[in-house]
Amino acid sequence: MSDFCLQILGSGSAKPTKNRNQTAQYLSLHNKSFLIDCGEATQVQMVQYSISTSRLNHIFISHLHGDHCFGLIGLISSLGLYGRTANLYIHAHPMLEQLLRPALNYFCRDLSYSVFFEPYSHSSTEVIYEDRGLKVSVFPLKHSISSSGFLFCEKEKERHIISEKVKFFNVPVKQIPLIKQGADFVTDEGVTIPNSQLTTDPSPSLSYAYCSDTMYSEKILPFIEGVDLLFHEATFLHSQLAKAEATMHTTALQAAMIAEKAHVKQLMIGHFSARYDDLSPLLKEAQTIFPNTILAKDGLTVKL
Amino acid sequence: MSDFCLQILGSGSAKPTKNRNQTAQYLSLHNKSFLIDCGEATQVQMVQYSISTSRLNHIFISHLHGDHCFGLIGLISSLGLYGRTANLYIHAHPMLEQLLRPALNYFCRDLSYSVFFEPYSHSSTEVIYEDRGLKVSVFPLKHSISSSGFLFCEKEKERHIISEKVKFFNVPVKQIPLIKQGADFVTDEGVTIPNSQLTTDPSPSLSYAYCSDTMYSEKILPFIEGVDLLFHEATFLHSQLAKAEATMHTTALQAAMIAEKAHVKQLMIGHFSARYDDLSPLLKEAQTIFPNTILAKDGLTVKL
Repeated sequence: MSDFCLQILGSGSAKPTKNRNQTAQYLSLHNKSFLIDCGEATQVQMVQYSISTSRLNHIFISHLHGDHCFGLIGLISSLGLYGRTANLYIHAHPMLEQLLRPALNYFCRDLSYSVFFEPYSHSSTEVIYEDRGLKVSVFPLKHSISSSGFLFCEKEKERHIISEKVKFFNVPVKQIPLIKQGADFVTDEGVTIPNSQLTTDPSPSLSYAYCSDTMYSEKILPFIEGVDLLFHEATFLHSQLAKAEATMHTTALQAAMIAEKAHVKQLMIGHFSARYDDLSPLLKEAQTIFPNTILAKDGLTVKL
Repeated sequence: MSDFCLQILGSGSAKPTKNRNQTAQYLSLHNKSFLIDCGEATQVQMVQYSISTSRLNHIFISHLHGDHCFGLIGLISSLGLYGRTANLYIHAHPMLEQLLRPALNYFCRDLSYSVFFEPYSHSSTEVIYEDRGLKVSVFPLKHSISSSGFLFCEKEKERHIISEKVKFFNVPVKQIPLIKQGADFVTDEGVTIPNSQLTTDPSPSLSYAYCSDTMYSEKILPFIEGVDLLFHEATFLHSQLAKAEATMHTTALQAAMIAEKAHVKQLMIGHFSARYDDLSPLLKEAQTIFPNTILAKDGLTVKL
């Protein structure tokens, strides 16, 4: 089973409510974890949901509005109190380092680890993180300031070995890695055993796209095409379309339209305006267009 | 009855726990409210406890450790979203403005109101706020960086008029304010009616002292002598005295000793280390020396 797991730390927008914190999401996979945005009190939410930060080395900040990054300084400071030694990398708009460094130098001068800012371009798409099993790219959103979406794509996984066949054909252990990558096997007698007889297809490579903050924009469709899970902001109901357009946010209906046009498997909406106490109208609205929609909720965990 | 009311927004120290936020307290009296310290997520706590910010114009920051001021930027930003127009005054170490201004200029450039920093000296005692009914002074604490305590003192109140006597002696309405301030009354016949026949003593003037962060220091005693309520940090149990001294904090026992020596009426301890899940040992320890001790707790409201 996949270990691709997303936990919502904040499903609200700028004004926190009793049930919804400012934006932050915690993504775990392949024994690593990543933080997406870091609104105020993100570290409080992490404590609330008993989230370990030991495998967290990369934080991705979508844009420089306070409700997406005011929690950074407190989190960085507390990670020091917890005795962290591993480097921490913050992928964000180039301006963020300039804004945070003075406060970091003052409040976190005795930090037990190093913080590195990794600026990325908000105007183009690029790969901003890559490891053996995962690739993270950014793509431009359409908001009142530069804002970027993130695409988390698992790389193609290894094929599954059929143990009985491998045993039957006496495949040497050292050749297994190649077989897992799709190589055929040639026996001592010179007979070629095609890979398809030794393996089954790999587990599917999963993908997650995060789009917040943004107004409705079909330009993002190529980047999020067919993802397993799309998080798209839906700050307002469609009855508030004028307000959504004025503030460059999206309505629940529009988020669902994007999900449908991009043929994603599942849609999660969030970044809800504080005006909504009951979120079921937003869910219903989105489901009229895209039935497989769920609501983001603080603490919610989704496994892909 | 007094309207002097203190609400605890955060009773923890630097590391937040599931039940304890970083330091912040909300003081209301005479239709005004004041914020004392502003750890991260203070605005979230205000929403949680349905606290109105309409009468909040002054914030007092004890010292520049993050757990006492990281919530400022988010609070300032959100007050703008709520459409605030009144000036906001932040009383703090002179360095705070230098640290916050760049972030304010960037994240809060369209703020609907003005923020003024009112620096005060951490090395002496001075009155930093005064209105018709209240005086706020600072006094030096003893911590790893400059840190100050705050003393909130109601000014002497007006004497209570005895209606029947005022009527009996035909005191003109325009003379009532003077009588309330203690003046005698002279009748048309030239007879002096002493004030003591016309009034009773005013309601007592209440006082609240806030001491955090600090290690044990008897130098603060003159400033907090006889206050109605003393908040004193008690980060550790006395069994952790070495740790308390190394980090320049106070133990519960020491906080109680200060309360006893200063003859305060009630002691509230707080700023508890995250290591304590159950706080009753801290309470018991303080009560061995000063029985009228209570525990700070997030959300707790105390009326003086």
